[in-house]
Amino acid sequence: MAEEVKVFRSWGSPFSYRVELALRLKGVAYEYIEEDLSNKSTLLLEYNPVHKKVPVLLHHGKPIAESLVILEYIEETWQENPILPKDPRERAVVRFWSRFLDDKCSLALWMSCWTEGETQQNFMEQAKECLHLLEEELKGKKFFGGDSIGMVDIAASFIAHWLGVLEEVAGISLLDEEKYPNLCKWTEEFLKSDAVMECLPKRANLLAFFQARKHAISATKASV
Amino acid sequence: MAEEVKVFRSWGSPFSYRVELALRLKGVAYEYIEEDLSNKSTLLLEYNPVHKKVPVLLHHGKPIAESLVILEYIEETWQENPILPKDPRERAVVRFWSRFLDDKCSLALWMSCWTEGETQQNFMEQAKECLHLLEEELKGKKFFGGDSIGMVDIAASFIAHWLGVLEEVAGISLLDEEKYPNLCKWTEEFLKSDAVMECLPKRANLLAFFQARKHAISATKASV
Repeated sequence: MAEEVKVFRSWGSPFSYRVELALRLKGVAYEYIEEDLSNKSTLLLEYNPVHKKVPVLLHHGKPIAESLVILEYIEETWQENPILPKDPRERAVVRFWSRFLDDKCSLALWMSCWTEGETQQNFMEQAKECLHLLEEELKGKKFFGGDSIGMVDIAASFIAHWLGVLEEVAGISLLDEEKYPNLCKWTEEFLKSDAVMECLPKRANLLAFFQARKHAISATKASV
Repeated sequence: MAEEVKVFRSWGSPFSYRVELALRLKGVAYEYIEEDLSNKSTLLLEYNPVHKKVPVLLHHGKPIAESLVILEYIEETWQENPILPKDPRERAVVRFWSRFLDDKCSLALWMSCWTEGETQQNFMEQAKECLHLLEEELKGKKFFGGDSIGMVDIAASFIAHWLGVLEEVAGISLLDEEKYPNLCKWTEEFLKSDAVMECLPKRANLLAFFQARKHAISATKASV
């Protein structure tokens, strides 16, 4: 029986991207359903009534929400190309850093790019601390997962591809090559991978999207 | 070789309690190291340099931090009395609700009890919505884990034991028996379990602890 694998996604969302990348690494064919986040589909709201967000993975008609939860499901369902190690302690380390990326890092990086003044300075401090911790974690390794892309790498896609775009839009610099050489080398290696490139949103499109968003925010502020 | 299992905990912390409860359910003997959160030990800071928080599980001298990460480690290390189901989809559901408790529910419940005025009303609205979702999830089940205590029940210990104390200190009511009969019945069943009771902080002690905290906050406000 053919697998019925569908991903409810939004093309610019790094969280949707995590799910698509994991499926591609496993060689799992899937369909995607593009969501308009300003006008979410009835199906998305039905499948993720708690958070009402993308991504949602639909497998044999049953939905799973929350990107890190989906990644664990993908790992347990398709054994090809493991994205988690076998050893319980190493798995715990992977889960620790994946959660760190969600709970601390993403917010600090995102808010650094969308705030101003003192608030922005505070978020930038937090963001730099997060990047420093990730830099240390990468010491002596090609990927967070060692020699191959694992769950932490997938969870960190945001840093490899989205962050540079947002820095450009915001006119700030966070991922400095002198301060974070391991992270910059990791970004390069990560973006070279075939699976990564296959479904990555184009940089120019992301840039146009976030620039338009910035202009819209500025216009709203100016009219208040 | 004897297992060397140590838990860095704080007696009043529901997050520390999660780890102790999981170990007791598994029948794993452990030592605990009580942390003074106002003067954290060098070892705690060394073992959890990122978050600097309890709980930390030390197994054969190696530390693991973050309570939900520790619960997965405990499940993978000691097979007795599983706290996660075997089926990948059911496991995803467990992980979804465990994260929900951490990401949405705990904050809304906690802040409902420690804020005032409009801010408090907003948090109480969010908290009630969270309780409503959990109430629905419990429909037709004794525990979130079905017939026995599982990871979601452990993650929800806060609601069963701490919430009532905090409601009393704050002079508010959230866990209403008429609105949330399943959750109230669950609380009763959960607190009856031997493993749960063995290491639960005494209600009177928790009440005294949080009342003292409230008085300290009020005194600080009055002196400003």
